[in-house]
Amino acid sequence: MSENKILSDLEIAQNAAIRPIEEIAGRAGINVDALELYGRFKAKIDPAKLRLPDAKRAGKIVLVSAMSPTPAGEGKSTTTVGLADSLARAGHRVMIALREPSLGPILGMKGGATGGGYSQVLPMDEINLHFTGDFHAITSANNALMALVDNHIFQGNELSIDPRRMTFKRVLDMNDRSLREVIIGLGGPAQGVPRQDGFDITVASEIMAVFCLATDLDDLRERLGRITFGYSYDRRPVTVADLGVQGALTMLLKDAIKPNLVQTIAGTPALVHGGPFANIAHGCNSLIATRTAQQLADIVVTEAGFGADLGAEKYMDIKSRIADVAPSAVVVVATIRALKMQGGVPKELLKEPNVEALAAGVENLKRHVHNVEKFGVTPVVAINKFATDTTEELEWLLAWCAQEGVQAAVADVWGRGGGGDGGDELAAKVAAAVAAAAPSDFRHLYPLSLSVEDKIRTIVQEVYGADGVEFSVPALRRLADIRKNGWSGMPVCMAKTQYSFTDDASQLGAPKGFTVHVRELIPKTGAGFIVALTGAVMTMPGLPKEPAAMRMDVDEHGNPVGLF
Amino acid sequence: MSENKILSDLEIAQNAAIRPIEEIAGRAGINVDALELYGRFKAKIDPAKLRLPDAKRAGKIVLVSAMSPTPAGEGKSTTTVGLADSLARAGHRVMIALREPSLGPILGMKGGATGGGYSQVLPMDEINLHFTGDFHAITSANNALMALVDNHIFQGNELSIDPRRMTFKRVLDMNDRSLREVIIGLGGPAQGVPRQDGFDITVASEIMAVFCLATDLDDLRERLGRITFGYSYDRRPVTVADLGVQGALTMLLKDAIKPNLVQTIAGTPALVHGGPFANIAHGCNSLIATRTAQQLADIVVTEAGFGADLGAEKYMDIKSRIADVAPSAVVVVATIRALKMQGGVPKELLKEPNVEALAAGVENLKRHVHNVEKFGVTPVVAINKFATDTTEELEWLLAWCAQEGVQAAVADVWGRGGGGDGGDELAAKVAAAVAAAAPSDFRHLYPLSLSVEDKIRTIVQEVYGADGVEFSVPALRRLADIRKNGWSGMPVCMAKTQYSFTDDASQLGAPKGFTVHVRELIPKTGAGFIVALTGAVMTMPGLPKEPAAMRMDVDEHGNPVGLF
Repeated sequence: MSENKILSDLEIAQNAAIRPIEEIAGRAGINVDALELYGRFKAKIDPAKLRLPDAKRAGKIVLVSAMSPTPAGEGKSTTTVGLADSLARAGHRVMIALREPSLGPILGMKGGATGGGYSQVLPMDEINLHFTGDFHAITSANNALMALVDNHIFQGNELSIDPRRMTFKRVLDMNDRSLREVIIGLGGPAQGVPRQDGFDITVASEIMAVFCLATDLDDLRERLGRITFGYSYDRRPVTVADLGVQGALTMLLKDAIKPNLVQTIAGTPALVHGGPFANIAHGCNSLIATRTAQQLADIVVTEAGFGADLGAEKYMDIKSRIADVAPSAVVVVATIRALKMQGGVPKELLKEPNVEALAAGVENLKRHVHNVEKFGVTPVVAINKFATDTTEELEWLLAWCAQEGVQAAVADVWGRGGGGDGGDELAAKVAAAVAAAAPSDFRHLYPLSLSVEDKIRTIVQEVYGADGVEFSVPALRRLADIRKNGWSGMPVCMAKTQYSFTDDASQLGAPKGFTVHVRELIPKTGAGFIVALTGAVMTMPGLPKEPAAMRMDVDEHGNPVGLF
Repeated sequence: MSENKILSDLEIAQNAAIRPIEEIAGRAGINVDALELYGRFKAKIDPAKLRLPDAKRAGKIVLVSAMSPTPAGEGKSTTTVGLADSLARAGHRVMIALREPSLGPILGMKGGATGGGYSQVLPMDEINLHFTGDFHAITSANNALMALVDNHIFQGNELSIDPRRMTFKRVLDMNDRSLREVIIGLGGPAQGVPRQDGFDITVASEIMAVFCLATDLDDLRERLGRITFGYSYDRRPVTVADLGVQGALTMLLKDAIKPNLVQTIAGTPALVHGGPFANIAHGCNSLIATRTAQQLADIVVTEAGFGADLGAEKYMDIKSRIADVAPSAVVVVATIRALKMQGGVPKELLKEPNVEALAAGVENLKRHVHNVEKFGVTPVVAINKFATDTTEELEWLLAWCAQEGVQAAVADVWGRGGGGDGGDELAAKVAAAVAAAAPSDFRHLYPLSLSVEDKIRTIVQEVYGADGVEFSVPALRRLADIRKNGWSGMPVCMAKTQYSFTDDASQLGAPKGFTVHVRELIPKTGAGFIVALTGAVMTMPGLPKEPAAMRMDVDEHGNPVGLF
């Protein structure tokens, strides 16, 4: 980090020399008629209009994941951006694929999702505010569906939809606690049919998950049609196709589904597209963006939400089954402070040097790293450097990695930027791992033919290190429904705390001898997975007492202030 | 109209030879660095970056209004587009300013708001679907405000906001009947504070009205700050400025506030921007778009919602007080079928020739035309031709106009297009009226110093032809509040049926001897007007039994089908 005044992320981003997006597109090999500009620095790419020298070319994937994080996060997005910049600096043809940020949390807590320091995607303010409108289109499609469903019930309810058994909610891209539990349809017979309901945040919408797993417009329509929004009075699932509005929802999403091209501070092209929750969904950017990046670049650096037990597992077992996007290397981001936290150091002491705590906490990293190997993929540990890290601590961790036989490098991409030399060593190790990878080594953790119970048992035993799984009575009842409805062939999407391998956030390190408790199962038949809830999952956040919005404004030039 | 197969509006639009928007901008005198592209055919204009040869230049305004319409509408948008195309064809430097369509009604009833036939703005499908995201930004700002308000109440309610006296609702750009009356904040102390609430459609949001009346970003922030969202326990109005979030809302609207440039089928530049309700708001496009068009063109053709009793009156008495946008001519669109309906012909017989009914119905047109003269502006009657009109009927109406001393022309802009010769005669008469107009002739109907009661009395007597006005007990109570809070200086925004001069939609023609009943008054302190409700006003529409959405889809090229 610089010795001078530390600039905010927004200040660094605003000082950066951003290039016209046509220039970035040209260098990435995107023909101009496949490009739809959104202002000067953002563009949508129409994959159908790309003229590729070799349509079958598929760049290698580097998946950025992490050890169990602290609540502040360990810098996965920053590492993704910095690593890509460093790979580009080393002469590789690189593209980034990242999630889009959600507006709700931005108005609540200071902090965005576009990387940090000198490893950011630009224009960070525009990406964080409305961007190209994708999330608004998803909000519209989601709420159009529910308006059409409630209208169907109001107009005679031919499908015999049971208003007490709805499984789909309206959404807003907003942190709005008051909408978590509501009653709608009040006011008498002209105003609708009263029922209990609630709103989720847009990133929790199944339409967001569908959007991010669809391979093209036709597949999007198919998946939208398969969404189960509720059950009939005789308990049959009722789908969007039963209602017949998958075409209209597809129409509302036809432009949003095209990936968004932006650039890093160092000028590396980045596709920022889609952003499903990492708990009740799979937590990575759209498949279309990943595939498009693969067609354009030799190496695609992408990211999955939360730690490797959640994000990486879902990337391998959900996303990598739909298309050939299996990673050639997985970067596991670790930080000295997260290792100390996993070693039992309380939050307020994380900045103090403490090698003993590292030794205890490194068991957490060890389990994550060896989990990656179970998929037949080589892990590379990226030690994301913080100003408070001591040389002794960093060297201890590098020595531990060497002894464990794991490739590792310290990366200072926040402070020096991937465009600088902050990520050179990491990039070299990642490039070597990618070059050495054989696609045939990749394997899913479980076959889809396994029962849902056994899929969950495999994940919790193999990845979390649990002895077994216990299903609640409602979950057991739902397992029977899943068999009855023929949904057993879907993969599982675990919703678990990101802070522990167990379902209890306070169990740190690498616990043993525990059982994972599955409270409820939610079939997402459009997305094509069964969500297993192991604890309370918040799908509509609230605002804090002093929301970040209180400090936000625009200056005399119309530029945002107080955004980050 | 063509003898051949009649093409749908969407087919005509898709067959049209659309030009790159940079070309349209160049011809309109817009420097390239003031242009922000949104795809190939849409762009935002940053008024602050325009380099104008003469910054003080202000083109003349032609306001397109109408007689009392049929439920299908009389083609104001089509006439606006066709007239502008015809004026351009005659060599005038012309620009159009129009409202943006709302997504909600599009999913419900077939039909858009971008003109029709050969007088449309393009790309009509994109304008009707998300466009440049302005309405989504307004939805976000509106709902951010309410999330912040309910969070304030939840976090201790320092401002003592009374949850039973909220005057501001959340919005969706959706026809969603079930959200009209809801209860929010259920689920216990962690989920918010329960209260009765409801959702409006986005176009009914006061933020939409504020957006359309703001002169620039600073004025937008000021107006947002003045919005009253509710009352405290001691009945003081509580404003956005009291909460301190006008800066954040301005930030959410900073890009949306820039006008959108598109083109007509004939290539005339059009600014399509903003779209407030024409009943509880003033019903015309943004002031910023109108002013920008005035800076770029010699003649600006713009439109106001509903008939001249509502749209034109509000344009003169609300919008024209904020900036110098008073019209030099008002086009009153009339149709043979609307005149017949006003003459008492039932809907199913409107296509039958009937000159006697015309003679009775023309009293309605007469009152509208002479009302325009009360503002010191010259009316021009545009007879919007339908295929079922007979020559006898059209000639009778032209003769009546001549006898009445009113300029009039038959316009076939739907069938032949303004770019063809369909609007040449209308354009010539409008151009003559504009050339003859003296700005000093323009006058508002009432001074702002009049009491709110007397403002309403003036409007209903002078424009509607009523004997007087009667206030309900709640309205009288609200009048006292308005005086107490110092809001008497605001103009009035009448919410009345568009189908009659009276507050009863069944009273056709030019009724006399009636009283207008004001049921309720709603101060909109941000927009800066007092809404006077004379009947039930629907601020959240519902979907019909067979919503248009059922027929919508995309084709194999990703183009919309079934949209119109």
